[in-house]
Amino acid sequence: MFSRILEASKRLSGIAHITPVMASRTLDETAGAEVFLKCENFQRTGAFKFRGAYNAVSRLTAERLSRGVITYSSGNHAQAVALVARLLGTHATIVMPNNAPATKRAATEGYGATVVEHNPEETTREEVAKQIQLEHDLTLIKPYDNQDVIAGQGTAALEFHDQIRDLDAILAPCGGGGLLSGTAVATKSLYPRCRVIGVEPELADDATRSFKTGELQTVYNPPTIADGARTPSLGELTFPLVMKNVDDMWTVSETAIVDAIKFLFYRMKLVVEPSGALGVAALMSGATRDYGRVGVVLSGGNIDGPTIRQILAD
Amino acid sequence: MFSRILEASKRLSGIAHITPVMASRTLDETAGAEVFLKCENFQRTGAFKFRGAYNAVSRLTAERLSRGVITYSSGNHAQAVALVARLLGTHATIVMPNNAPATKRAATEGYGATVVEHNPEETTREEVAKQIQLEHDLTLIKPYDNQDVIAGQGTAALEFHDQIRDLDAILAPCGGGGLLSGTAVATKSLYPRCRVIGVEPELADDATRSFKTGELQTVYNPPTIADGARTPSLGELTFPLVMKNVDDMWTVSETAIVDAIKFLFYRMKLVVEPSGALGVAALMSGATRDYGRVGVVLSGGNIDGPTIRQILAD
Repeated sequence: MFSRILEASKRLSGIAHITPVMASRTLDETAGAEVFLKCENFQRTGAFKFRGAYNAVSRLTAERLSRGVITYSSGNHAQAVALVARLLGTHATIVMPNNAPATKRAATEGYGATVVEHNPEETTREEVAKQIQLEHDLTLIKPYDNQDVIAGQGTAALEFHDQIRDLDAILAPCGGGGLLSGTAVATKSLYPRCRVIGVEPELADDATRSFKTGELQTVYNPPTIADGARTPSLGELTFPLVMKNVDDMWTVSETAIVDAIKFLFYRMKLVVEPSGALGVAALMSGATRDYGRVGVVLSGGNIDGPTIRQILAD
Repeated sequence: MFSRILEASKRLSGIAHITPVMASRTLDETAGAEVFLKCENFQRTGAFKFRGAYNAVSRLTAERLSRGVITYSSGNHAQAVALVARLLGTHATIVMPNNAPATKRAATEGYGATVVEHNPEETTREEVAKQIQLEHDLTLIKPYDNQDVIAGQGTAALEFHDQIRDLDAILAPCGGGGLLSGTAVATKSLYPRCRVIGVEPELADDATRSFKTGELQTVYNPPTIADGARTPSLGELTFPLVMKNVDDMWTVSETAIVDAIKFLFYRMKLVVEPSGALGVAALMSGATRDYGRVGVVLSGGNIDGPTIRQILAD
């Protein structure tokens, strides 16, 4: 997988943004560590998902590419695949639940994709995507259970270690485990002694339970504000990568997530979505006093008006 | 003044942040120009004001410094002077109107300053500050009408030109004119052909009218959302500097300011306060199609909860 990440990095060169790293004295004092924030909220489409989507779609043969791509996602992967398809001159179809926020649908359509709604009460998104995929001979780009997607996500950590040397630990949020797997493989290949820690909401702790028990655990539609972490479980590819390369999994409360978003907003002037703030939430909850230099991946900044207004209402 | 800016730059080295420059393809398309945003919202205390305050206070003799400093401001200059005083081991007194937002007072006190309230119906802030200054033998650090403050603010443009070469124009917001004066002097000294444009809210267009007529014009408590631009007029020092070094003054509507803040928030993931968004508001209103490369100073990011919630409510 590490060689795939290195190849992905070459493929993304000049296409993905090299996102900046930010720091804050106040955060350092609160966390009791030297903290570095990798700002993937500044990545194209507002999240790290652009990396994996571009890496996967750009590897298709000209013939496969010309047929078009399809995926299922109501979140950042949808926008990423939509933009990548446009950049590479093909067409994207995105399967979304019919209760997805209008803003997310509009953003995805804004990049030129076709959105197909499905009723989650009647069918799964996988079934709907499969049917359309077969009918139109499209290529399915899964959100996280895809080697090229995982490799693409791993380039964020590669870049991070290049920007900030000698990290003692790196924290990444965990939904389906694509970012966490890629981060862990890149980190352990370069700096085996750097600890890799995945962070989940307490309310969606399936990956933490999977990690602790060694058996795949699931959640169903967990009521966490961190929509990027509502995925039911780790994937077939990401689960073993997490088991092998991740050192620990931590969970954070909903209150800690909200507090982290507010801190990032008011003090650091950064717009970060709930899933993107998981690592900072862990640090601000006093999760670690044991590390000197801690890197945190702020995975994305796509937050809608009602959510941020509610968060800033207190 | 340019030599003062160069000296200020040396003084601020390692103390002020070198703030990043951000760009957006979408903004470029909207503006019809190549746009670069100088992110002074990431400066210490969340605004460029730290530069001028540090430059002015750090130049005091040990004896004057030990007596303490005083200023009047309900905004970013207050927080800047408060932090600078703490960094330099002295004490700051800040005169604020008794109707200043509690958050701004709390932020200033958070940096260790003493806040003195005055009733703007009864006395001016200048009178109150003068009395305390004389009583305790303090040094008054005016918000903009001070050579060292202006020179400090000019370092943002110096740094900007060093980061992005060959700008055709540079846009800076205008309140009391400290930032605009410093930006204009630095720019004209380095790149005389780069146009310098000040931007004001239509509702607080005193500097624009002063610039057009050549006579100092004033506004009284204008109802603009851009609190940093509510200053009554340019100062004794800033007015002639603006007349001599600025090429044009533009005004923008309140709607344009709100739209700019929303764009910066949702698309660029940047928290920018209303005054800080004036330049982007001008570009998004179609103010320029004539320049190739345009630099914009995002002057600050200190926005309170009620204001941002209202802006994001539409």
